[in-house]
Amino acid sequence: MADRKQATCIAPVNIAVVKYWGKRDENLILPINSSLSGTLSTDQMCAKTTIAISKSFQRDRLWINGKEQDATGKRLQNCLREVRSRCGSEIEGCHYHICSVNNFPTAAGLASSAAGYACLGEYFEYKEGITKIQFTIRQGSGSACRSMYGGFVKWEMGNKSDGSDSIAVQVTPESHWPEMEVLILVVSDKKKGVSSTSGMQTSVKTSKLLKYRAESLVPKLMTEMETAIQQKNYQAFAEITMKDSNQFHAVCLDTYPPIAYMNDISHKIVQLITHFNQYCGEYKACYTFDAGPNAVLYVLAKDVPQILSAVCHYFPCTENHDSYIQGLSNYSDVKEFPKEIENTICLDPIPGSLTGIIHTRVGSGPRVILDDNESLLGGDGLPKC
Amino acid sequence: MADRKQATCIAPVNIAVVKYWGKRDENLILPINSSLSGTLSTDQMCAKTTIAISKSFQRDRLWINGKEQDATGKRLQNCLREVRSRCGSEIEGCHYHICSVNNFPTAAGLASSAAGYACLGEYFEYKEGITKIQFTIRQGSGSACRSMYGGFVKWEMGNKSDGSDSIAVQVTPESHWPEMEVLILVVSDKKKGVSSTSGMQTSVKTSKLLKYRAESLVPKLMTEMETAIQQKNYQAFAEITMKDSNQFHAVCLDTYPPIAYMNDISHKIVQLITHFNQYCGEYKACYTFDAGPNAVLYVLAKDVPQILSAVCHYFPCTENHDSYIQGLSNYSDVKEFPKEIENTICLDPIPGSLTGIIHTRVGSGPRVILDDNESLLGGDGLPKC
Repeated sequence: MADRKQATCIAPVNIAVVKYWGKRDENLILPINSSLSGTLSTDQMCAKTTIAISKSFQRDRLWINGKEQDATGKRLQNCLREVRSRCGSEIEGCHYHICSVNNFPTAAGLASSAAGYACLGEYFEYKEGITKIQFTIRQGSGSACRSMYGGFVKWEMGNKSDGSDSIAVQVTPESHWPEMEVLILVVSDKKKGVSSTSGMQTSVKTSKLLKYRAESLVPKLMTEMETAIQQKNYQAFAEITMKDSNQFHAVCLDTYPPIAYMNDISHKIVQLITHFNQYCGEYKACYTFDAGPNAVLYVLAKDVPQILSAVCHYFPCTENHDSYIQGLSNYSDVKEFPKEIENTICLDPIPGSLTGIIHTRVGSGPRVILDDNESLLGGDGLPKC
Repeated sequence: MADRKQATCIAPVNIAVVKYWGKRDENLILPINSSLSGTLSTDQMCAKTTIAISKSFQRDRLWINGKEQDATGKRLQNCLREVRSRCGSEIEGCHYHICSVNNFPTAAGLASSAAGYACLGEYFEYKEGITKIQFTIRQGSGSACRSMYGGFVKWEMGNKSDGSDSIAVQVTPESHWPEMEVLILVVSDKKKGVSSTSGMQTSVKTSKLLKYRAESLVPKLMTEMETAIQQKNYQAFAEITMKDSNQFHAVCLDTYPPIAYMNDISHKIVQLITHFNQYCGEYKACYTFDAGPNAVLYVLAKDVPQILSAVCHYFPCTENHDSYIQGLSNYSDVKEFPKEIENTICLDPIPGSLTGIIHTRVGSGPRVILDDNESLLGGDGLPKC
């Protein structure tokens, strides 16, 4: 272990409520608009990553969820090159072994790479102690910079051409709005979609509506969303979140050729939430969809039982009830959906359309684990399992 | 028959390639942007309507496809009131019997009411001989005014507040581009969607992207589309058609609550056409979707066999082969899809996802049938069957 340095970090997933879509600079990873997200608790979902540096390593190696991956990819290497140039002679001639695991199914199609890169960021921030490290981890995944803090986090697009003012800052810590919980509805879908990297490139090139949205609509949305969060105004938060998600997917459809990340089940979820809110006369849940069919619902803790009951009624589990809901709730917590509401909501249940539900909350940012027993790499620099 | 006047008309369906979505005046039916459509041949699809006026009729009555309908609806009555005020004392104390049939399944969700109202328009134009009648029939269905002519037709939005310059004019007659054929892919879908009337009202109220599209993007699209049609430039025509359809559906998603007219099968059709065109290195087909999941493909006659072969390969018929394709082609005309193209198109066939295909072409406008034997109403003023 003498010539080897290593650290293990845990980093969260973040889910945007004002979406990032499109770069104005592909090399510096500078966005065409500011964005804002909630950081999800690492208790339910996180990436745990061990990074080791040693002169004895022959080459960079990368393991994700137990499987060795190609470590020569452009994004990872850009990121590591940046790290090398920062660390200087101290790590000259060294190579990296990086081992990362998610504690949630990657099949969920959730932004797992952002969490992985945020680990890398946390590790070097721990060493460097500056927010400049955001620039480095954005080389890996743009939105990863928003996973560097807990609570609600905004990524200011900035104006400078060198990107030095394009940084993520915390809007409110996780203690500000502890009632804010999250339900992730994982939609059954095997199709391989368009990656967000290539999708946003095509959108920037072809969608006139994206340009208009980024320049003329998002600045106002950002201000309104920050105010809603600071005032803990759920009604405003919910409406902006849903409208922003709708508009992001509208822009994807306006892309040429068009990109449809939401599928029929996604749209049924939208209908359920819309009808349920209308029945209640106020927002009880709001949806947002990233570059895939899964729905993420931001819901206040007091309303979670009602929403879970509605979701389980219209998207019933067909097998493995015990594992259908994971996290803060269990399937045994789910109450029967009231007949009187069912009669006003014109939807037919679609059994088997979700593979599961993850119940979590807005939580804290990444952290370094100092206990070496928690390392994912053994004494030989290879994954422990 | 002495105190009775009647006429029978046949009117076509039109399918927009630059979409109409949103009114700037709900009473005068004035659109927020100009639109442009192809008129489809009445040989394959049309509405046939007989209108009779008599003092002996006790009340207005309406039959559509053999079933009596409510004749007190606002749209029809607005339309008839307008007619009464134009015709004056001649028809005082009279009531209408109107009988209309479509020669295509209304289940196809195609714009059948436009054709019906165009019949009404043709009948009174026949009597009045002026294009002012467009104002009247727009009271029934806005886009019906584009069914008043054959070939390609534009509806100029106009600027005057009384709507007097908001009129449909022919861009080119059907003889200009006789090679232009049309395949309608009827998608199996039982869900009741949002009507286009209420959908566009909500879009106008809530979608910021719609406003931008109508004001800043459509004027240029209209000019480009007219040029493409006048020059018979299929490559330009195809690209504008697809981009405009994408943008219309993007605006529907940006509506709040969002409207998704296209479903998973619609998006698979988009993928097939996109991949097939990419394989060919030029546009061989272009898609457009109205307020429903059905695809309408504009295809040059020379390319129809290839496109039919592709559609039948990826959306194969599971029953009633003989009736799967109607109109200008038969199922026996369909050639096997070449293996070498299949290998480059990454799509799985989805059997049973279409209920059928209608093969037609751009055709002529409405016409009055003078032969009384063709009337849908008998001597008693009631439907013959």
